[in-house]
Amino acid sequence: MSNLLNPTAKGVFLIAVTPFTESGELDLASTDRMVDFYLERGATGLTILGILGEATKLTADESRTFVKRVLARVADRVPVVVGASAAGFAPMRELAASVMEMGASGVMVAPAPTLRTDDQIVAYFDMVNETLGDGCPWVLQDHPVSTGVQMSTPVVLRILRNSPSCVMLKHEDSPGLAKLSAIRAASDKGDVKRVSILTGNGGGLFLPEELTRGADGAMTGFAYPEMMVDVCEAHACGDIERAHDLFDAYLPLARYEQQSGIGLAVRKHLMAQRGVIASAALRKPGPKLSAADLADIERLVRRQTKRLGELQ
Amino acid sequence: MSNLLNPTAKGVFLIAVTPFTESGELDLASTDRMVDFYLERGATGLTILGILGEATKLTADESRTFVKRVLARVADRVPVVVGASAAGFAPMRELAASVMEMGASGVMVAPAPTLRTDDQIVAYFDMVNETLGDGCPWVLQDHPVSTGVQMSTPVVLRILRNSPSCVMLKHEDSPGLAKLSAIRAASDKGDVKRVSILTGNGGGLFLPEELTRGADGAMTGFAYPEMMVDVCEAHACGDIERAHDLFDAYLPLARYEQQSGIGLAVRKHLMAQRGVIASAALRKPGPKLSAADLADIERLVRRQTKRLGELQ
Amino acid sequence: MSNLLNPTAKGVFLIAVTPFTESGELDLASTDRMVDFYLERGATGLTILGILGEATKLTADESRTFVKRVLARVADRVPVVVGASAAGFAPMRELAASVMEMGASGVMVAPAPTLRTDDQIVAYFDMVNETLGDGCPWVLQDHPVSTGVQMSTPVVLRILRNSPSCVMLKHEDSPGLAKLSAIRAASDKGDVKRVSILTGNGGGLFLPEELTRGADGAMTGFAYPEMMVDVCEAHACGDIERAHDLFDAYLPLARYEQQSGIGLAVRKHLMAQRGVIASAALRKPGPKLSAADLADIERLVRRQTKRLGELQ
Amino acid sequence: MSNLLNPTAKGVFLIAVTPFTESGELDLASTDRMVDFYLERGATGLTILGILGEATKLTADESRTFVKRVLARVADRVPVVVGASAAGFAPMRELAASVMEMGASGVMVAPAPTLRTDDQIVAYFDMVNETLGDGCPWVLQDHPVSTGVQMSTPVVLRILRNSPSCVMLKHEDSPGLAKLSAIRAASDKGDVKRVSILTGNGGGLFLPEELTRGADGAMTGFAYPEMMVDVCEAHACGDIERAHDLFDAYLPLARYEQQSGIGLAVRKHLMAQRGVIASAALRKPGPKLSAADLADIERLVRRQTKRLGELQ
Repeated sequence: MSNLLNPTAKGVFLIAVTPFTESGELDLASTDRMVDFYLERGATGLTILGILGEATKLTADESRTFVKRVLARVADRVPVVVGASAAGFAPMRELAASVMEMGASGVMVAPAPTLRTDDQIVAYFDMVNETLGDGCPWVLQDHPVSTGVQMSTPVVLRILRNSPSCVMLKHEDSPGLAKLSAIRAASDKGDVKRVSILTGNGGGLFLPEELTRGADGAMTGFAYPEMMVDVCEAHACGDIERAHDLFDAYLPLARYEQQSGIGLAVRKHLMAQRGVIASAALRKPGPKLSAADLADIERLVRRQTKRLGELQ
Repeated sequence: MSNLLNPTAKGVFLIAVTPFTESGELDLASTDRMVDFYLERGATGLTILGILGEATKLTADESRTFVKRVLARVADRVPVVVGASAAGFAPMRELAASVMEMGASGVMVAPAPTLRTDDQIVAYFDMVNETLGDGCPWVLQDHPVSTGVQMSTPVVLRILRNSPSCVMLKHEDSPGLAKLSAIRAASDKGDVKRVSILTGNGGGLFLPEELTRGADGAMTGFAYPEMMVDVCEAHACGDIERAHDLFDAYLPLARYEQQSGIGLAVRKHLMAQRGVIASAALRKPGPKLSAADLADIERLVRRQTKRLGELQ
Repeated sequence: MSNLLNPTAKGVFLIAVTPFTESGELDLASTDRMVDFYLERGATGLTILGILGEATKLTADESRTFVKRVLARVADRVPVVVGASAAGFAPMRELAASVMEMGASGVMVAPAPTLRTDDQIVAYFDMVNETLGDGCPWVLQDHPVSTGVQMSTPVVLRILRNSPSCVMLKHEDSPGLAKLSAIRAASDKGDVKRVSILTGNGGGLFLPEELTRGADGAMTGFAYPEMMVDVCEAHACGDIERAHDLFDAYLPLARYEQQSGIGLAVRKHLMAQRGVIASAALRKPGPKLSAADLADIERLVRRQTKRLGELQ
Repeated sequence: MSNLLNPTAKGVFLIAVTPFTESGELDLASTDRMVDFYLERGATGLTILGILGEATKLTADESRTFVKRVLARVADRVPVVVGASAAGFAPMRELAASVMEMGASGVMVAPAPTLRTDDQIVAYFDMVNETLGDGCPWVLQDHPVSTGVQMSTPVVLRILRNSPSCVMLKHEDSPGLAKLSAIRAASDKGDVKRVSILTGNGGGLFLPEELTRGADGAMTGFAYPEMMVDVCEAHACGDIERAHDLFDAYLPLARYEQQSGIGLAVRKHLMAQRGVIASAALRKPGPKLSAADLADIERLVRRQTKRLGELQ
C-alpha cells in the first residue's frame, strides 16, 4: 500500500473532530466538509479517533462508519492515522487490523495509564510491536497530561530502538523543548533511527520554538488549521520572524481553545461558525459553552481577525 | 426474564477466571468444568469478564463466545453478572445490550478512573443509568485500589437513590468496615433502598467481619470457593466462631493468592492443580510463577490441608 | 494589627522568588531590590514561600530570615502573604504563628495531596480553621495541577461558609472560568460571603477573561509584573480592549515563562537580566537553561519590546 | 559513634508509635514504657517518626523531645532509625543532622511522591547522598502504597551502587517477593553491595515467605512485636514450619491491624490494653474505633490467645 505512514512525514496532521448532528447522530456530510476544509487549508495528514475525536463515545459500528467515510473522502491525498490506544492488546490488534484493512496509513498508541517504571513502559511497547506486527506503521504518543505516564528521553529512545514499525513521535510532553532537542540530537548522532516528530505540546502552543528544535511539524487540533500550516511554511522557508508573527496573531484564541475539558466545545463552536460542520454538538457527556464563554470567543475572534489583517 | 439480578441476592458470587489453553486459545471445555466446579462448591452466582477474568485480553468475538458458553452451562441455575466498565458510554451500552440479550442477569460498572469530585461521580452514574436503561439490573463496583476513585458513603447513597436499576453493591473499599456499616445503617433507617452488598475487600480477606456488619455475602475469586461458601453458611447459621475457624484455616493461602499482579497466576495454578482447568496459562502480558513462588504455594496448600483436617 | 489581609484585597499580589547568590546562599540585598521592584511596578501585595519561591529548599532559619527581610523592606506598604501548606497541622500552626508574629498579613493553604472526596476536603479545612485560629486571615489555594486535589464549586462554597478567617481565594483551577463565574455568582446572590478572588490560572494566562468574570486581580509570578498591573488597571477603568492589547503583547513570553519545571529558571534569568536580582541561580535540585532556551528567550523579549513600543 | 546503623542489621526493628495523653500531649512516661516493652519483646532496633508515628502531627520541638527521650531510654542497647523524608533537601539536612547529633543510628528516606521516571528517582537519591553526607547511614524506604513511586529492581540497584552510606532497604513493595529475590540475587552475585533488607510488605503480612527469600528481618509495627521476633528466630533456627505456625496464629489479628487508616488506632488500642501506653489517643485528625471495631478486636484477640495456647 503506497500510502503507509513513514518517517519522512512532516507538516500538519490535523487531529480531526467527529461531527455530530444536533440530535447526536454521526454527521457524515459534515465529515466530508471537514475533510475538505482541513486539506484545503494545507493539512498534510489527518488523525482520527483520538481523545478529541470523542472516540470513546462511538459504538464500534459508528467508528467503522466514520473511519470509512474519512478514508473515502481523503482518497489517499494525505495519510490518515487512527488512534488505537485500547484497554488491552486483543482489542488493539482488532482495531488496528480493521482500520489498516480499510486503508488507514498507520495507528497511534499511547502508553497504558497504569505504567510507571521505565522497564514497564518499554515492555508495554514490546507488546505493542508484537500486537501490531510488521505491516502497521505506528505513532508513539507521548502525552503525560492525559496518560499520567512520564517517558524519559532514554525510554523514548529505547522504544524507538525496539520498534521497527514506529515511524513517528507525537510529542506532547510539557515542558518538552529540552526533550525534543535531546531526541533529535540522538538521531542526528546516529544513536537511534530518525523518526518524524510532530508536536502537540499544550495543543501547539509552543509550535515555533518546537520547529526550531527540529520538529517536523504539528499534530494537533485547532479551528484555524491555517495557523499551523502557515507557521510551518514560514519556518520551513527560514522566515522565523514571520512564523512567530503568524503564531502570535493566533495565540490568544489558541490558548483559549486549548483549555482542557471545555476546549473541544470551543473548537466545534468555531468550526460550526466557519461553516465547516453543521452543528457544534458534542455527544454526552460533554461541556456546554455559557454566554460568558461565547462572549470571550467573540472578542478573541474579532481581535484575531484584526491582527491578521494587519499582518498582510 | 426470570433470572434478572435483584436486591435479594446473597451468598457467594464467584469472580470467574477465563481459561486458556497452553497456546493461549480460549479453552471452552475448561470453561464448562469451571462453571460446574463453582456451582458444585456452592456458588450462588457468577461474575465474568472482570479484571481478574483478563477481559481486556479478549477480542470482541472471544468475549461473546465465552459469555455464551458460560451462560449455556449455567443454564439459569444461578445469576451471571458481566463486567461492563468501558472507556465510554457507547461501548458500555453495546456491551450491556449484547450480554443481556444473550441471557446475562445483570452487569457490573465501576467509576471511570478520571473522576474525582463527588458531583463528577454522581453525574457519571446518572449517565450509566441513562446508558443501561430500565431493563438492565446493575452492580455498583466500589474498588478504589483499581480505579483510583474514592466514593464516600454519602456519594454511594446518592448513587443508590438515583439508580432504580442498581440492585447490588460490590464493596471493595479498604479499609471498608465502617463504610459497610454506614451504608447498611442507611437502608435499615429507610434513608435509601436496600441493595444486596457482596464484598471483595482485599479479595475477601475481611469476610467474617463483613458478614457481621451486614454484608449479604462475597463477590470475589479464590481457588477454594468452598471457603467463602462455608464461611457464609456458618455465619448465616449463627455459628460465628465456626465461620472464623474456617476463614482462619484458609487465610494464609488466601492472603498469598490475593497479592495484586501475581495473584491471578497463583489462582490459575491452583485451579489447574485441582483439575478444574486444563492449563494455568495467562494470556500475555501476565506474570509467571517462579520456583520460589511454587514452593511457597506448595507449603501453604499442605499446611491448609492439615488445618482443614483438624477442623472436622 | 492594621495590615491584616481582608476580603477587599485586589490588584496584583506578586508571587516572589527567593534570590540566591551564585554559590547558593540567600541573597538579602537582592531580596530588598526585588521588593522595591515589585512595589514600584505596582504590586498591591506580595506572596512569599510558595512553591515558586523554592520554599522547600530553605532551612527553617533561612525561611525566618527571608520572611523578616521581606517584611522589613515592605514596611506595611502592602500586605504580605506567606505560604503555610505543610505536611501536618502541628508544623502548619508553628509556621503560621511564627510568620504572623513577625508581621505577615495572612497565610495561604492548599489542600493536602492525599485528599479525594468532598467530605475529606471540607474536613481538612475545618482542621485548618482550628489550627490557624481566629486571628490569622488565610487564603484558600485551589491549584489542582500541583496538589492533585479537585475542589468542586460546592466544596469551595462549603469551605468558605465554614471559614470565618478565609478572606481570599487563589483561583488556579484549569479550566477555571466557569468555576470563577459560579463562585462569584454565589456571593452576589448572598449564598456565601464575598472573598477576594485573585487568579493564577496557568500563571495568569487567562487574566483578562478572569477579570471579566469577576476576579479582583491576580496572584502569580512573572518577570514583567507591570503586565498584570497594567492589565488590571485598564480593566478596572473599563478599557477592556486596552487590557487585552497589553495582555496580548506579553502573552508569548508569559506562555514561555509559565512552563512548569523550567519556568522558574526563565523567570529568574529575566529578573537577573532586568537587574532585579544579582544571580539567576536556583538552589539544587533545579533545572538549568540551555543555549537553545536562552535563544528562545532572547527572541521573545526582543519581540515583546517591539510590540510594547507599538502599543504606546 | 559505635551505634551507627550498618549492613549487618537483622531481626526486628519496631516502627514505634508516638504515645499521647488523652488530652493530646506527648506522653513521655508511656514513651519509656513503650521502649522497654519493645526491647523486652526482642526488638533489635527501633524506627521512630515514620508515618505510623504521627510524625507530621508533631511540632519541631516535640519531635526533638520525643527523639531525645527514646534515645535516652534505649541508651545504645539497639540502633534507632529516624524518619527523615521531607518536602525538601534543606529540611532533610537539618532534621538528619539534628537527630544524628542527638545519637540516632541512621535515618530513613522514601522517594518524593512527585518522582516518576527511573532517572528522576536515581537523581533524587543522588541528592539525598549529597544532603546527608558521609557520616549518616541511611535506609532506603520502598513503599509505593504511600509514596506512589514505583522503583523497579534495576532502579533500586542503581541507587545502592550510588549510595555508599545506604546500608539498609526497607522493603514494602507489594507484591514484593520477586523483587526481594532479585535484589538478594544481585548482591549474592556481587553485582551490588549487600545491604540489610528488612521487610514491611503489607505490614509484615508476608514475613515467613520474605525470610525464605533472604530478608534479614522485619521493620514494621504490630501491637504484638513478639510475633515478628519469634517468627524470625524460628526461621533463623531453620524451623520453618514453626515460623509459619507462629505467623499463622497471629495472622487474623495482624491482618486487621494492618488496615490502612484505621490500623494505627487498632494498634494503639491494643498497646493501651496491654498496658504499654497509658492512652490509645491519636492526635487529630485521626480515626476513632467504633463499638463494632472494638467487638471485632475483642474476638480476634480472644481467638489469638487460644491459638497461642495450643501452640505451646
